[in-house]
Amino acid sequence: MILDKSLIEQHNQANQSLHKKKFEALSAVLSGEGHDVKTILEKIAAFQIAIPSWALGTGGTRFGRFAGGGEPRSLEEKIEDVGLLHALNQSSNSISLHIPWDIPKDPKAITQLAASFELGFDAVNSNTFQDQADQKESYKFGSLSHTDKAVRDQAIQHNIDVIRHGVDLGSKALTIWLSDGTDFPGQQNFRRMFERTLDSIQQIYAELPADWKVLVEYKPYEPHFYSTVIADWGTSLLFCNKLGEKAVGLVDLGHHLPNTNIEQIVSRFLMEGKLGGFHFNDSKYGDDDLTVGSIKPYQLFLIFNELVEGMSSPEIKNPELSWMIDASHNIKDPLEDLLQSVEAIKIAYAQALIIDRPALEKAQAENDATLAQEIMQNAYRTDVRALLAEARQQAGAALNPVAFYRESKIREQLVSQRGAKSFATGL
Amino acid sequence: MILDKSLIEQHNQANQSLHKKKFEALSAVLSGEGHDVKTILEKIAAFQIAIPSWALGTGGTRFGRFAGGGEPRSLEEKIEDVGLLHALNQSSNSISLHIPWDIPKDPKAITQLAASFELGFDAVNSNTFQDQADQKESYKFGSLSHTDKAVRDQAIQHNIDVIRHGVDLGSKALTIWLSDGTDFPGQQNFRRMFERTLDSIQQIYAELPADWKVLVEYKPYEPHFYSTVIADWGTSLLFCNKLGEKAVGLVDLGHHLPNTNIEQIVSRFLMEGKLGGFHFNDSKYGDDDLTVGSIKPYQLFLIFNELVEGMSSPEIKNPELSWMIDASHNIKDPLEDLLQSVEAIKIAYAQALIIDRPALEKAQAENDATLAQEIMQNAYRTDVRALLAEARQQAGAALNPVAFYRESKIREQLVSQRGAKSFATGL
Amino acid sequence: MILDKSLIEQHNQANQSLHKKKFEALSAVLSGEGHDVKTILEKIAAFQIAIPSWALGTGGTRFGRFAGGGEPRSLEEKIEDVGLLHALNQSSNSISLHIPWDIPKDPKAITQLAASFELGFDAVNSNTFQDQADQKESYKFGSLSHTDKAVRDQAIQHNIDVIRHGVDLGSKALTIWLSDGTDFPGQQNFRRMFERTLDSIQQIYAELPADWKVLVEYKPYEPHFYSTVIADWGTSLLFCNKLGEKAVGLVDLGHHLPNTNIEQIVSRFLMEGKLGGFHFNDSKYGDDDLTVGSIKPYQLFLIFNELVEGMSSPEIKNPELSWMIDASHNIKDPLEDLLQSVEAIKIAYAQALIIDRPALEKAQAENDATLAQEIMQNAYRTDVRALLAEARQQAGAALNPVAFYRESKIREQLVSQRGAKSFATGL
Amino acid sequence: MILDKSLIEQHNQANQSLHKKKFEALSAVLSGEGHDVKTILEKIAAFQIAIPSWALGTGGTRFGRFAGGGEPRSLEEKIEDVGLLHALNQSSNSISLHIPWDIPKDPKAITQLAASFELGFDAVNSNTFQDQADQKESYKFGSLSHTDKAVRDQAIQHNIDVIRHGVDLGSKALTIWLSDGTDFPGQQNFRRMFERTLDSIQQIYAELPADWKVLVEYKPYEPHFYSTVIADWGTSLLFCNKLGEKAVGLVDLGHHLPNTNIEQIVSRFLMEGKLGGFHFNDSKYGDDDLTVGSIKPYQLFLIFNELVEGMSSPEIKNPELSWMIDASHNIKDPLEDLLQSVEAIKIAYAQALIIDRPALEKAQAENDATLAQEIMQNAYRTDVRALLAEARQQAGAALNPVAFYRESKIREQLVSQRGAKSFATGL
Repeated sequence: MILDKSLIEQHNQANQSLHKKKFEALSAVLSGEGHDVKTILEKIAAFQIAIPSWALGTGGTRFGRFAGGGEPRSLEEKIEDVGLLHALNQSSNSISLHIPWDIPKDPKAITQLAASFELGFDAVNSNTFQDQADQKESYKFGSLSHTDKAVRDQAIQHNIDVIRHGVDLGSKALTIWLSDGTDFPGQQNFRRMFERTLDSIQQIYAELPADWKVLVEYKPYEPHFYSTVIADWGTSLLFCNKLGEKAVGLVDLGHHLPNTNIEQIVSRFLMEGKLGGFHFNDSKYGDDDLTVGSIKPYQLFLIFNELVEGMSSPEIKNPELSWMIDASHNIKDPLEDLLQSVEAIKIAYAQALIIDRPALEKAQAENDATLAQEIMQNAYRTDVRALLAEARQQAGAALNPVAFYRESKIREQLVSQRGAKSFATGL
Repeated sequence: MILDKSLIEQHNQANQSLHKKKFEALSAVLSGEGHDVKTILEKIAAFQIAIPSWALGTGGTRFGRFAGGGEPRSLEEKIEDVGLLHALNQSSNSISLHIPWDIPKDPKAITQLAASFELGFDAVNSNTFQDQADQKESYKFGSLSHTDKAVRDQAIQHNIDVIRHGVDLGSKALTIWLSDGTDFPGQQNFRRMFERTLDSIQQIYAELPADWKVLVEYKPYEPHFYSTVIADWGTSLLFCNKLGEKAVGLVDLGHHLPNTNIEQIVSRFLMEGKLGGFHFNDSKYGDDDLTVGSIKPYQLFLIFNELVEGMSSPEIKNPELSWMIDASHNIKDPLEDLLQSVEAIKIAYAQALIIDRPALEKAQAENDATLAQEIMQNAYRTDVRALLAEARQQAGAALNPVAFYRESKIREQLVSQRGAKSFATGL
Repeated sequence: MILDKSLIEQHNQANQSLHKKKFEALSAVLSGEGHDVKTILEKIAAFQIAIPSWALGTGGTRFGRFAGGGEPRSLEEKIEDVGLLHALNQSSNSISLHIPWDIPKDPKAITQLAASFELGFDAVNSNTFQDQADQKESYKFGSLSHTDKAVRDQAIQHNIDVIRHGVDLGSKALTIWLSDGTDFPGQQNFRRMFERTLDSIQQIYAELPADWKVLVEYKPYEPHFYSTVIADWGTSLLFCNKLGEKAVGLVDLGHHLPNTNIEQIVSRFLMEGKLGGFHFNDSKYGDDDLTVGSIKPYQLFLIFNELVEGMSSPEIKNPELSWMIDASHNIKDPLEDLLQSVEAIKIAYAQALIIDRPALEKAQAENDATLAQEIMQNAYRTDVRALLAEARQQAGAALNPVAFYRESKIREQLVSQRGAKSFATGL
Repeated sequence: MILDKSLIEQHNQANQSLHKKKFEALSAVLSGEGHDVKTILEKIAAFQIAIPSWALGTGGTRFGRFAGGGEPRSLEEKIEDVGLLHALNQSSNSISLHIPWDIPKDPKAITQLAASFELGFDAVNSNTFQDQADQKESYKFGSLSHTDKAVRDQAIQHNIDVIRHGVDLGSKALTIWLSDGTDFPGQQNFRRMFERTLDSIQQIYAELPADWKVLVEYKPYEPHFYSTVIADWGTSLLFCNKLGEKAVGLVDLGHHLPNTNIEQIVSRFLMEGKLGGFHFNDSKYGDDDLTVGSIKPYQLFLIFNELVEGMSSPEIKNPELSWMIDASHNIKDPLEDLLQSVEAIKIAYAQALIIDRPALEKAQAENDATLAQEIMQNAYRTDVRALLAEARQQAGAALNPVAFYRESKIREQLVSQRGAKSFATGL
């Protein structure tokens, strides 16, 4: 379905008066604190978060999956869904494909379709954590790290194929989430697993086009429950350094042990010029893949504090970042969940933008922890939602995307088009 | 397949000489320490651990499942598999069924089949964490705790049906693992979820036969990632106390937050006379469902220390316990994994039996932590495997069940009978 | 030192214009959402959080302590410090004493001194986790749970003494934080430790005046690292139920295992009518005792959501709660830290007050997780600081207490009075 | 006190008969499995674990310290205590000093005293986590990472002084445990803390003698509770790589987040040739500093599995390792605790030595997880204590050191010499 933009205008008109009051009050406060509201609005508007193709359908756990209705049944419909999101909030101008779930049969047509929604293609993702029906070798005991060269070769070739699909679509990065690991002590030799994996990724790396990156994701456990080859940021960095300039780390917020200080990891990666991007989500226990900002919004703000500080620092030589949501929508409408996630990310970003940095640096230089906290909390406690709404309105998007989505009965229309029992490919 | 017992005798004969040496050396040491080896052997032999029907097939994660071959295709074949295990180690004389995966169409025939393998039926398990194809109401947002009475009624009726199936088979307990919970703050009111759940279980409780128990399992998270209705032992105990005498708690070793002292929870349940039983498995991160004893064998020993002490104490008024394995065999042959799990459980039990209790009590009375540790570690560091082997041999089982299973090519026979692509019902 | 109230007026005058703009904009929004701002202000003003006497000096870790200057040298000076805090924010009208650190030699004079600052006395705290110089028996191996009756008797008597001191001062509750536990498996029998502890607390309970409560705190570890007698809320509740009506649980936010859902525990205690009060602080790893709200502000809000909902529900029969800060000020000025903590608590409270409860209940009834999240986040994302400032101003306190404290150079005055090397009694 | 060696002989004589039976039975089993018992005995005997000077007195927590009697009152008495331990088990031929607690006034005399007990000096340890009485600058806000150059310079100079003390004594390594970190978000800029720290350690590094190493320890939290500069192995490795060849990582078993796979970290360090050594202890929750092997003995075995495999692999170019105990003896006699710790370490080592490596490698190559587990558990379940006892006896040490220590009333003699209220310097 293609959104009638006049509906958005009507929605904005109806909510204009309240929004204006809020925005003006906030602008006055921020200006009073020395901020240039116009610049902040431009930064917020420019910030775009990619949508992964697998996040458009209902997710599940190992215990079950409770499908929703109107899920996209094809790559074309997935692009349509991201187009819808982008029309609603003007904040997601690209889609991240997963191979083999989203192999584009006619890349040119797909690129044109995406362009018609003002969308491009973010990083492409390979999959060697599942066996496909027609697959010769099994990944039961690993893929790029497997003891058997035939399995490794198959997994290497798959990644090269993914790069080629990406090239066809204009992607500029390959994301490798390598689930390889072990479930029992002694099952494998850790060092040899590392070495085989390095050798495999080196072969993939050799096939990267000149302007591409490879994003090396890490995760401590799941789907394996004793060890993972790329378990933490330290291992990811080790791989990146051994691979070369095009290899950078990818931080998925849910891929950490309990109590990890993720914002410091972000700082370390940036310091080394090796931060490649993010998979945003939220979690309380493990890789829960909940809506971004729904559990630990302050942590999200602290991560953006690092990003805003780091990316603007002349000391940092880090490539452009990939921003992506990676959540699992087990009980919410996926599109609503994605709207909430994007909102939370941009709130954290906006709050990080209004931190009084010169004052903070001074407090840090003086070891004034009380004042540093006051400065951080002043930014975090500020209600910046009117900034986001204003940026959206200026870009032609909805003041309140979730409300608009519901008023316009978009899900109902998708169900009537696609059926109540459609199933998106994916997990 | 039915095991030819003469093969076991051959295996035992071939391993006799080494076994005898080990057993005699161990017996001498234990006798020297004042233990009655004969009594210990009897206790080890008498200890039986139930096998859940769903543990006989390959498990999986939300990311995938890599099936093995020769999985049981029917309830009959599952019983056959448990019969095999029992023949191999004489330690698993019952099976725990899961409804609706294992509905017995002809209970009498099933009971006879089980009896032919010297098997009975342990607790029956209900399932309200998945939707079945023909189900009217969905459990997407809960079952016994659901806001909608129609859903609750369906889930209550299902549990009552499960009791009836259990009665037909001679089971004496219903296990309720209630996965109900929430994924987001604010999604539900915690108190009302508790109250609705209590009301539902009370209705189920009312249908329990006089000699039955209901086992109330707890788990902090998964499949829901913000809250679970029965999240911890405290909540389980609260339910049991409100329900009545037939309600007892069930401890699954993987259902705890990081660093939990599980053995103290076991002690608390026992003290209150409310320990119902165990789901044995092992884990490093969450509910990893690994082979029992493969990650934290000392913790397992400490749990058995509580059980041996508690169950023999005249102060404790606790009903008989249900012992069951609940693991997920993602990469191992399920039957081999179960043999290893049973062995680990019995090792921990045997080690707990040889703790010098009078000396330990004295060290405790004198706050002699060094000595208490020496006593505990002396038992734990003793290699008790020859005791287990001897108890098995005396019962007609194999000295080394895993080795025998491989020598006899049992899996190969099952594959040839059932096919390389058979799939057990279950997760 | 006694604060010159005209200084506060000057401060408020200087900040009036900006405050007024913020407050009016916020009031308009809240009124538009259907809230009665006047009622909210009254509730915020009425909410008082007790200050523990030991939080007025610099804290430390086992590795060291870095003292600040101007710490209170006596009970009188501690009362003075709390008086200062109360004058600054009108939110802490009581002090919680710790015996033996704060034994009032002349209770009448102390009570009068406190009254002169408009302060009363909150719960009194016993200490059986340290040996005092003149103490006969040692608590090295426990106190109320000790194997030796002489030690238990001494600890019981100490608690009774604490009650008597409390009676003299007008306190109405005894807080027992029992650090007793073990460091090694086997060191003690869990059940007997529980039983001895129960017997000890029963004897203390028998000495409680009719209108008193005993607050039973729980903590999983530290200072003992294998087990703690009262390790979790389940054990705390078990004790409370065995003790009687006057026994209620106390929740210290830092006393939980990683990833615990504390707000659900709050709900459970309230449901059972057994919530006694709080020790507020924040933490990332363990019992870090950081400034309230400095690490997980959203969790704090979710806890207040339970409290606001629960305390206003006719179904709940729970006694009045004790609210107290319990933090360790290792690197900040203790008074500044306490001002920040009180602010964070009241922000969470105010945000919980503006949750649209009828809408939330409707969303819950309809399992609309997206909408429930929108409602919760709408309250949380609202910048309520102007409400707090207005409530303070109306009560004669400072619009911005931390800024005022610094402008007025209060710490400098305390240092000049008490010295740069004064040391508060305590940890 | 100096131990009368004839007492050890008497003890061994009295326990000879039982020991001999156990050792012979074990030897027969191991020989039958293809092991060369003599070589294993030699390896066990050669393995020496250093004792830190601060572990000879009673430890404490931030809540208190319960001193024992007979603690060493001087560096000389500390050396005497390690001499005692070494005489008892012939497994600790060196001591690790902590400056400024153990500044040797007459290094030559101290070296001779140590030599008289057959002791040398292991790594020396600097201390910038506490302020000393005569210190000019305070470490309240950090040392090597401090914002103020004067503080950093003082901390650098202290480390250089420590090196010089070490040179005098024949040490070959400096251990830096840098406690620097922050307690609140925003308190410092993570990157600049790293850079200042690197600059500081580079200056220390420049003063290392040619044959020295610097051991870079990591720890995620405590004494700071938001961030630590050297928080994890990844940061430690980053520092080591930037510093140069002499810089290697140090693994303290208690310095990890919950659920960390430590053995894989050991493998990664070894692979990079950057493993410097260990601080052995055990823990359930955090840096609990309990007796080695008292909580997670299987994890200790798995770590030694990596060490035995890695150190014998021709692929690994890693320098010699430093082995040290680092525990806190809060409730046990420190000497007894150390004897238990050394025993646990050597048990793990011996078990790792008897892993059937060719069979394990074959199982790994074939992805036979069941068999790999059988092989690992066969080694771990073997009761190797008789091997340790035999190695001790052959070296002139006691068959059962703890029993001998108690029979000989060594602590009582120390108390009578040093007093019941002596206090070791240290924490």
